[in-house]
Amino acid sequence: MFHQISILGPGLLGASLALTMKKRGLCQRVHSWSRRSETRAQAMQADWCDAIFDQASAACEGSDLVVVCTPVETIVPLIKQVVPSIRPDALVTDVGSTKNLISREAQGIAVNFIGSHPMAGSELKGMGHASHNLFDGAACFVTPLDGDRDSEIVRLQNLWKAIGMRVVTTTPEKHDEIVAHISHLPHLLASCLCGYLGGMDANWKSLAGGGLRDTTRIAAGDPTLWKQILEQNREEVIRAVDGFESELQALKGALLDKKTPELIARLERGKQFRNSL
Amino acid sequence: MFHQISILGPGLLGASLALTMKKRGLCQRVHSWSRRSETRAQAMQADWCDAIFDQASAACEGSDLVVVCTPVETIVPLIKQVVPSIRPDALVTDVGSTKNLISREAQGIAVNFIGSHPMAGSELKGMGHASHNLFDGAACFVTPLDGDRDSEIVRLQNLWKAIGMRVVTTTPEKHDEIVAHISHLPHLLASCLCGYLGGMDANWKSLAGGGLRDTTRIAAGDPTLWKQILEQNREEVIRAVDGFESELQALKGALLDKKTPELIARLERGKQFRNSL
Repeated sequence: MFHQISILGPGLLGASLALTMKKRGLCQRVHSWSRRSETRAQAMQADWCDAIFDQASAACEGSDLVVVCTPVETIVPLIKQVVPSIRPDALVTDVGSTKNLISREAQGIAVNFIGSHPMAGSELKGMGHASHNLFDGAACFVTPLDGDRDSEIVRLQNLWKAIGMRVVTTTPEKHDEIVAHISHLPHLLASCLCGYLGGMDANWKSLAGGGLRDTTRIAAGDPTLWKQILEQNREEVIRAVDGFESELQALKGALLDKKTPELIARLERGKQFRNSL
Repeated sequence: MFHQISILGPGLLGASLALTMKKRGLCQRVHSWSRRSETRAQAMQADWCDAIFDQASAACEGSDLVVVCTPVETIVPLIKQVVPSIRPDALVTDVGSTKNLISREAQGIAVNFIGSHPMAGSELKGMGHASHNLFDGAACFVTPLDGDRDSEIVRLQNLWKAIGMRVVTTTPEKHDEIVAHISHLPHLLASCLCGYLGGMDANWKSLAGGGLRDTTRIAAGDPTLWKQILEQNREEVIRAVDGFESELQALKGALLDKKTPELIARLERGKQFRNSL
């Protein structure tokens, strides 16, 4: 499928992608770059890594696929930096959790850039947790823009399909609206709940059952990464929070005003959605 | 520890309690009652059940421990109904998720009533999911009132300790405040998030990652049971929701006003609480 691929930023997602592509015979060589020397040392020991570079440009030379797996704020600056070293026929993509800002800027820099967002990952970080099962059955957004060549879109879709993902092709704007609701809002609520409970009596937390632990697991995510995601998708996240706040007001109102049938109906609606997940 | 115990309402908690007490030799006989004939038929087949009754009073006769495991709204009416059949020296408790209303009313009805709330359970219902591991290491509230005898309080505490729980003794009011925050609020938020997302494009849910599934698992709980819990703990739940709303406003404000250091600090605070759980 590819001769040589470049993974810029071999964290959980990047390393898992390299691992899976190697295992499935989707590429022959993996070149990688990390700005951190500890990560480069770790990558040198990893089976999936054929060469690790301390210069991102050097890691891109000769590859027919470049995948940028760094935090969302650094994706566009990094593409700008490496673009002179990228082969003109190479496909360039990223795995960032936001797409609108990134896609529009990156398209103007790299000819063959098309954004991706595999909905895989965990609150665990780093290549040490890399797994070839990470992508199995999960959804992956591909967000082309006007002007992207059909052949390149299909090439990118086929990559994600080949590692077992369900590909959803949509605009970067629609992507950002959807993930604001199904990913960024849940994260923000979990984080907010934890921040709130963190201000209470410290003894209370030892009393919590499994429900609180499940509900808040994602709040363990990296604050610096999540700050970038929330800021890059600011408008859609604010809209999602506003909508949630209205819903919460209505539920609280039903409880406060003793509107029992409405309270049950709202809980029932939530249960039905959850059961359908 | 006990000769004969009565489990009124052998659902997940009641059946697990009977199972665990039998397994650990904490009682010789288990009598049980359910208003549903299907549940009675199921109990008759269960190892933990020595006798199943279609009259709650009959199930209580001769027992030295009566545990009411029915939905919170029905606990006090049921105690009222069975109290003439309860031995005067029998210990009476419940496993309801709210304690203030129940304890104050029940104490006036049954002499030896002291409320309990084992923080165990799951969104799964029914004795079919009963397990002798359900209580392991979890917290259990015991909520005595003025006038309760010390010997009976100790007897109740020892029961929960004997099945592997960490006992926390506090007032019913304090219990209700604590669980409003660490249990009822998370449930209400999960339910509300699901209700909100249920109003969105039905295709979105197939795109969600594991984060949304974890965050919302508890929203699959029974709406009728949860409506009772929220209503019985209305004041404390409203206070907890109000507090959460302020926190959410502040987090949204930091995002909206581009106060990046504050946004990171809030996410960091959430992460620290989560990591400490």
